[in-house]
Amino acid sequence: MLEKIKKEVYEANLELAKSGLVILTWGNVSQIDREKGLIVIKPSGVDYSSMKLEDMVVVDMKGNVVEGKHTPSSDLLTHIELYKNFPNIHGITHTHSTFATSFAQAGEDIVVFGTTHADTFYGNVPCTEKMSKEEIENNYELNTGKIIVRTFKDKDYESIPAVLVHSHGPFIWGKSARESVENAIILEEVSKIAYLTKTINPHQERISQDLLDKHYHRKHGKNAYYGQKENKDE
Amino acid sequence: MLEKIKKEVYEANLELAKSGLVILTWGNVSQIDREKGLIVIKPSGVDYSSMKLEDMVVVDMKGNVVEGKHTPSSDLLTHIELYKNFPNIHGITHTHSTFATSFAQAGEDIVVFGTTHADTFYGNVPCTEKMSKEEIENNYELNTGKIIVRTFKDKDYESIPAVLVHSHGPFIWGKSARESVENAIILEEVSKIAYLTKTINPHQERISQDLLDKHYHRKHGKNAYYGQKENKDE
Amino acid sequence: MLEKIKKEVYEANLELAKSGLVILTWGNVSQIDREKGLIVIKPSGVDYSSMKLEDMVVVDMKGNVVEGKHTPSSDLLTHIELYKNFPNIHGITHTHSTFATSFAQAGEDIVVFGTTHADTFYGNVPCTEKMSKEEIENNYELNTGKIIVRTFKDKDYESIPAVLVHSHGPFIWGKSARESVENAIILEEVSKIAYLTKTINPHQERISQDLLDKHYHRKHGKNAYYGQKENKDE
Amino acid sequence: MLEKIKKEVYEANLELAKSGLVILTWGNVSQIDREKGLIVIKPSGVDYSSMKLEDMVVVDMKGNVVEGKHTPSSDLLTHIELYKNFPNIHGITHTHSTFATSFAQAGEDIVVFGTTHADTFYGNVPCTEKMSKEEIENNYELNTGKIIVRTFKDKDYESIPAVLVHSHGPFIWGKSARESVENAIILEEVSKIAYLTKTINPHQERISQDLLDKHYHRKHGKNAYYGQKENKDE
Repeated sequence: MLEKIKKEVYEANLELAKSGLVILTWGNVSQIDREKGLIVIKPSGVDYSSMKLEDMVVVDMKGNVVEGKHTPSSDLLTHIELYKNFPNIHGITHTHSTFATSFAQAGEDIVVFGTTHADTFYGNVPCTEKMSKEEIENNYELNTGKIIVRTFKDKDYESIPAVLVHSHGPFIWGKSARESVENAIILEEVSKIAYLTKTINPHQERISQDLLDKHYHRKHGKNAYYGQKENKDE
Repeated sequence: MLEKIKKEVYEANLELAKSGLVILTWGNVSQIDREKGLIVIKPSGVDYSSMKLEDMVVVDMKGNVVEGKHTPSSDLLTHIELYKNFPNIHGITHTHSTFATSFAQAGEDIVVFGTTHADTFYGNVPCTEKMSKEEIENNYELNTGKIIVRTFKDKDYESIPAVLVHSHGPFIWGKSARESVENAIILEEVSKIAYLTKTINPHQERISQDLLDKHYHRKHGKNAYYGQKENKDE
Repeated sequence: MLEKIKKEVYEANLELAKSGLVILTWGNVSQIDREKGLIVIKPSGVDYSSMKLEDMVVVDMKGNVVEGKHTPSSDLLTHIELYKNFPNIHGITHTHSTFATSFAQAGEDIVVFGTTHADTFYGNVPCTEKMSKEEIENNYELNTGKIIVRTFKDKDYESIPAVLVHSHGPFIWGKSARESVENAIILEEVSKIAYLTKTINPHQERISQDLLDKHYHRKHGKNAYYGQKENKDE
Repeated sequence: MLEKIKKEVYEANLELAKSGLVILTWGNVSQIDREKGLIVIKPSGVDYSSMKLEDMVVVDMKGNVVEGKHTPSSDLLTHIELYKNFPNIHGITHTHSTFATSFAQAGEDIVVFGTTHADTFYGNVPCTEKMSKEEIENNYELNTGKIIVRTFKDKDYESIPAVLVHSHGPFIWGKSARESVENAIILEEVSKIAYLTKTINPHQERISQDLLDKHYHRKHGKNAYYGQKENKDE
């Protein structure tokens, strides 16, 4: 079942490994079939180098395994909570990529310092609050999803497709597993240049709203003019 | 048409991808045929890995597509403005390379701290002023070219073949597409060692004019003695 | 003799070279056969690229060569001291990996700033005191082992499987040669993000005990639920 | 002529390119035949990827080309000055490697912060004074050699086989071209961890003389016990 999505999720996980954003068994990618209410996700703790297409796990929206011989990624309940609350996303990537994770550990947003950031993220990439003792001890992965959703209460998850979970690392999403991996790659590069910008000029502030508008809308929405016509809405 | 230049631009774009200076579809390289008044440039938003020779786009000096089935790079009007105002250049490269972009985001020139820099850039690589709301909202890419030209009002574009556009990233040029890519690679390395130099010694100043003269003229101009004789003027 | 362990040690040493954690002939990995009281270790100063399975050296618990034509790693006596005092470990890796070594040179513990660290190390990775003139001049390698053991007097070597030797670099252990290499890879990544976290936010403190407990026990011990069932105890 | 040394120099130059220490045509390696008073050196400004064995240039101790169709490296006179004044060296490498060059640009010695440094360099790697206007304008490359020799007036060039030329970059030497490249690789790694150590702990001081003695003499001299017996004196 869901052979097409399984292939996409499998390939997106391999793309993630190839990108250098994850080491060993770290990280995971999923994609949802919204009509069927089913999610395909990477198995937990399996090496990317030995992982096969048939190792992908199919689960329902309660987290029950519907197909697959492996345990799904331990972050599954976080993915599900995001799919439930962010209705227009279809793919999610989780990494511990170096620079994004360092900002998460420092408890700081990634400030929009330039057009590289503005091309993909329409504003700062927010860092969540710390989770409470209660949130950590009971239903930790579900509560990780809930604190992300809360962080986006007054933000648009579609135009800022990533978050830093405090003391943990980034979750990144998109219209497909593949797009979420691509956004994860961009987030890491954006985090790296934000880090360097801050150490060159600790007082640097975010770019003007004008420049943010120009670059974001140059690539996104109905007036976009970056890329080829057939890809404009991607 | 322009088959030789198309090949050069295509290969220069591949060289850029291979250099690690760009990820995904970022960056672009062009080259001009000054006699014919035509420019060959990378198509917008196309993956380097799937890009083919015939995907190169030929445009005239007003930006009209003369040959090619793709939309040209969205930075085309910046390239044209530079070709119009810098009459001795034939190739232009644009990247978001990590360290050069971080200096652009910090709004700082890249100071000539050593001979590695002086071998290619005869002085600091300047960062432009911020663009105004009006410059951003109307004819943004053309105005990006204009602010670069303004930045070089009292500088020699031939001996400092690069600029940082504030909050954006570097544009780099040369006598060919290939030389502009080579200068882009050097700019990134020079930016990296300038970053490290500043963090080792925040009060370090630029090198003496004597050392700058020695190293620049060792490689450039009629008294150059670096390299092989047949390459001296390259 | 010990053909299976020799193969494991050989492959773990190759894995270490492949990981980018060591250059030239630096670093070494060993594994113990506790029943026989014999250790297999990398030969001293041999290139990873030309190293062969039969170059592995078998030694007894006094450091005498039992099999093999090469001199064992000069750090052998440190390995033996750790095997004697940490009875549940079976593999040891020593590297001069960049970020872990930099913390060792700075004389600082690697603070547990996030869940990436907590997934493997149940608390700060400690840095030893400096060694005294006497400890350095006589039986240096043995004393290196002794100062590590002393550093763990009030710590649990099983849940914090690594140490930084002051002014030197990390020693890392595990249930096998392979696991010690894996822990060495994780330690280097954890050191890198700790470095970046400290430079983003110099006042950042360690994570809460709750979050440390949650992540460590999610992967280790009888209630672990990360990974596949057959691997749970690894 | 000198076919064996030409091969060694050629391979050492390729090893340098492979190490990632140089980009484009930067850097050069030479080796001397002291009996014949001849030096083999890389040609100036030639790409490593297209360089061939027969491109190596043979010169005499005055810098005259004795064999080879290419111009020798523009740094030749620096190499010759070092060979004349440091009688026990046989190979020299020059790079603009990132971290060593950054210390040169900052005008700082590389302090011996740990055993990784002490294993190869018996003390700080010194940075020269700045060169004067006169030294720069006349016989620049020769004077670069002279300021290096002056920097070692009270130092032992055999136990500290590298120097940073102020505002320029490192020169590294050894008993052969190959050993000089190996020392260049170590210098770059040592420079990187010194940089990180300084940014973790800006007040860190050099290691004790005891630890420096122990590690240096563990690998060098008649009591060395690192490595295999046949390699002990290397």
